[in-house]
Amino acid sequence: MTKQDNILIIGAGLCGSLLALRLAQRGYKVEVYESRPDLRTTDISAGRSINLALSDRGFKALRLCGVEEKAREICIPMYGRLMHDKEGNTFASNYSGRENEYINSISRGDLNGILLTEAEKHENVNIHFNSKCTSVDIENTVAHFKSYSTKEEFSIDADVIFGTDGAGSALRKSYYLEKKFLFSYSQNYLTHGYKELEIPADKNGKHQISDGHLHIWPRGEYMLIALPNMDGSFTVTLFLSYDEGEYNFKNLTSEEKITAFFEEQFPDALKLIPSIKDEFFNNPTGALGTVKCSPWMYQNKTILMGDAAHAIVPFYGQGMNASFEDVTVFDEILNQDLDSWEAVFKTYQNSRKEDTDAIADLAIDNFHEMKDHVANPVFKEKRKLEMTLEKMFPNEYFSKYSMVTFNEDIPYAEAMKKGRAQDKALLNMVADNDLENISDLKSVLKRVQEETNEILQEDKIAGL
Amino acid sequence: MTKQDNILIIGAGLCGSLLALRLAQRGYKVEVYESRPDLRTTDISAGRSINLALSDRGFKALRLCGVEEKAREICIPMYGRLMHDKEGNTFASNYSGRENEYINSISRGDLNGILLTEAEKHENVNIHFNSKCTSVDIENTVAHFKSYSTKEEFSIDADVIFGTDGAGSALRKSYYLEKKFLFSYSQNYLTHGYKELEIPADKNGKHQISDGHLHIWPRGEYMLIALPNMDGSFTVTLFLSYDEGEYNFKNLTSEEKITAFFEEQFPDALKLIPSIKDEFFNNPTGALGTVKCSPWMYQNKTILMGDAAHAIVPFYGQGMNASFEDVTVFDEILNQDLDSWEAVFKTYQNSRKEDTDAIADLAIDNFHEMKDHVANPVFKEKRKLEMTLEKMFPNEYFSKYSMVTFNEDIPYAEAMKKGRAQDKALLNMVADNDLENISDLKSVLKRVQEETNEILQEDKIAGL
Repeated sequence: MTKQDNILIIGAGLCGSLLALRLAQRGYKVEVYESRPDLRTTDISAGRSINLALSDRGFKALRLCGVEEKAREICIPMYGRLMHDKEGNTFASNYSGRENEYINSISRGDLNGILLTEAEKHENVNIHFNSKCTSVDIENTVAHFKSYSTKEEFSIDADVIFGTDGAGSALRKSYYLEKKFLFSYSQNYLTHGYKELEIPADKNGKHQISDGHLHIWPRGEYMLIALPNMDGSFTVTLFLSYDEGEYNFKNLTSEEKITAFFEEQFPDALKLIPSIKDEFFNNPTGALGTVKCSPWMYQNKTILMGDAAHAIVPFYGQGMNASFEDVTVFDEILNQDLDSWEAVFKTYQNSRKEDTDAIADLAIDNFHEMKDHVANPVFKEKRKLEMTLEKMFPNEYFSKYSMVTFNEDIPYAEAMKKGRAQDKALLNMVADNDLENISDLKSVLKRVQEETNEILQEDKIAGL
Repeated sequence: MTKQDNILIIGAGLCGSLLALRLAQRGYKVEVYESRPDLRTTDISAGRSINLALSDRGFKALRLCGVEEKAREICIPMYGRLMHDKEGNTFASNYSGRENEYINSISRGDLNGILLTEAEKHENVNIHFNSKCTSVDIENTVAHFKSYSTKEEFSIDADVIFGTDGAGSALRKSYYLEKKFLFSYSQNYLTHGYKELEIPADKNGKHQISDGHLHIWPRGEYMLIALPNMDGSFTVTLFLSYDEGEYNFKNLTSEEKITAFFEEQFPDALKLIPSIKDEFFNNPTGALGTVKCSPWMYQNKTILMGDAAHAIVPFYGQGMNASFEDVTVFDEILNQDLDSWEAVFKTYQNSRKEDTDAIADLAIDNFHEMKDHVANPVFKEKRKLEMTLEKMFPNEYFSKYSMVTFNEDIPYAEAMKKGRAQDKALLNMVADNDLENISDLKSVLKRVQEETNEILQEDKIAGL
């Protein structure tokens, strides 16, 4: 492995463009091929995932690559969830009891544009758009493409290929179809799909509801969420079953039905979404899938990164952060000066896989938490207690959410293990009224820590 | 749905042949196509899975179809595990504290032959061999085949298609590739593969080691097991990592290395396997995969059953039993007289899926239990206690193993949930010496039940 190797990156989305930037900074020669047109000059959003949540793991990677500040300029801080009930009442639930811990709504397109521009400043990087990868000959490290501009097919022969081509990765599909090795692979869909809608800015270009929150309308079977955009609008997402329950994507077939559904379930939101009919019928219904696979690598030739290796559902706001963290971890492995790409790839996967598996599972847990549990009294009391503990003991207590979102040096797998045990301890203590007679908070903290450790210890023995 | 429907079953293995028999008994017209030659007239074992464990869930299905007694005639009872340590010492661990609870070693080929013969007694069943399904047009319920006899390709147009074509199912692959619906799918391989070897009968045609046990040589990183055959031989299976650890399939490349490995780890077994070199180099190395997917069905047209829907690893001895139980459950759904195949398929999957997911997970747990935990002192003490409880309280105490293996009316998912909680309670009580001061067994039982219920309750609250 040398700096003269011809590196091919398939996909210039968030992960691919950050990876290209970082490899260029380290002196590698990088060619990037992207299926879509250049999003800096063409609007290609098509009603999908317009904004995303950026938090500390993402910032760590952006910092590594020197683009943190540029990203912060287009961030809108969200300090907590704002829940809306059917009567239009709201209640807030902070993400953290510590000040300065918040997540950020950011435009996917704008952030991707920043990364492309930064990458292209390096003369050892070339980015080619409108080039769709159709398959990869993994043995010979040759990627086959079709140009959307010229309609012609062409092939690129590289020394090393990085597949950062997203959840529908062509490189991953080639792993599956070529059967050169035992490829563990899973694609799992939730019963729900999603549809994006919009709350426009008011006539003064301002946000019509709080821009400091992620809004949630939790209804058990379905939910609506909204994240603010810099132009005063909100991107609203409806999560709804494809074909189960009273209301679903299959039976909401007329304007009357949609309006009746929203009037019953989301009356306050309905008033703010003027184009609901057009948006509901014209925007695509997106699927919510989780992809896990192993191995990510083939010898010293190819590797999957980002969503191509581990696509997750959006409910923890960690999809982009996890993909950016891939770059951080990969960069740390490169610092070890291993002697081959194969050793780098293997070390990277060994260090990274359990963490991306963990965030995938946590994201599915949060689907149920957001649409359902946030309205549960026991859950609400538990979250209130956690906020108090974080506020009073900012260096000693960290909720699962805090460990995942604001503590970029705790690996996801550790955050999951400890966070789940802590949640279990807290929920059971709250449900049993165990803490009612403990008046001083220091004793409460001690009790929570003891119970959490006991749960971890019992789980360990049960797993022998 | 009528008795006049043309039913096509792809695959005449254990599940397909039992399903054909049952559907024929119910009066349906069934055509069965099988890729292999007729195993009653051709030896096609090729060193793979010669014998299997048959237990109560399997017997229940065989009973339903009137073939239980024929199967029992070729069964060899195994009453427990017999563990072999490196010094050649052995210790036994029963499968149950109740009498008459045991598993059975049975020849896959002989049992399959019985089922084929029984099915063919019905004039509404035709079985075609040497016909390999290559793909299925699921929209038009047309299956494409290649004949291994004539080398020609042909197609069968049916009203309903059952895919019982095993872990590598062509019907399932068509679901994946046709992309007509969101298909959740996973194939996951263990790091270990397997190789079959043989302990031949002695010169009098007798078994050289106990024929009343399933033998295990647990070594943590690898293990050897042996199941008795009716001819006095044992089928021995080595489970070993593909490429990790000191010994693995990749580096055991010479007779010297294999002999050295067995001499160090399995000296008593080595003495009994005279053809180890030939067998090791000539028998294939099998992969250990788990397949889960959903949906199993497409409209009123096609459905997956058996390994095609849920292939599992062999460590709980439940692969065949789970596939046979599919037929039991499907038959119960047919008894409901639903009005379409679609309703039957949907009801079947809704009732069955969580149970096949559960046995898949339990089978992976048992891989670690068999190669590793069975030699652990805490685990051994726990199993000893369970045997005592089952013996003293045969109607009150059921270990996880008993619930899974001998209690065919407890669904797998329930057995897993309750069994895991009970294991956790027991292991922690044994590890903490909690039971030392309780002398009467009735109190021990009560304590175990209380702890188990508390764990179940705490898990429930943690999941809200």
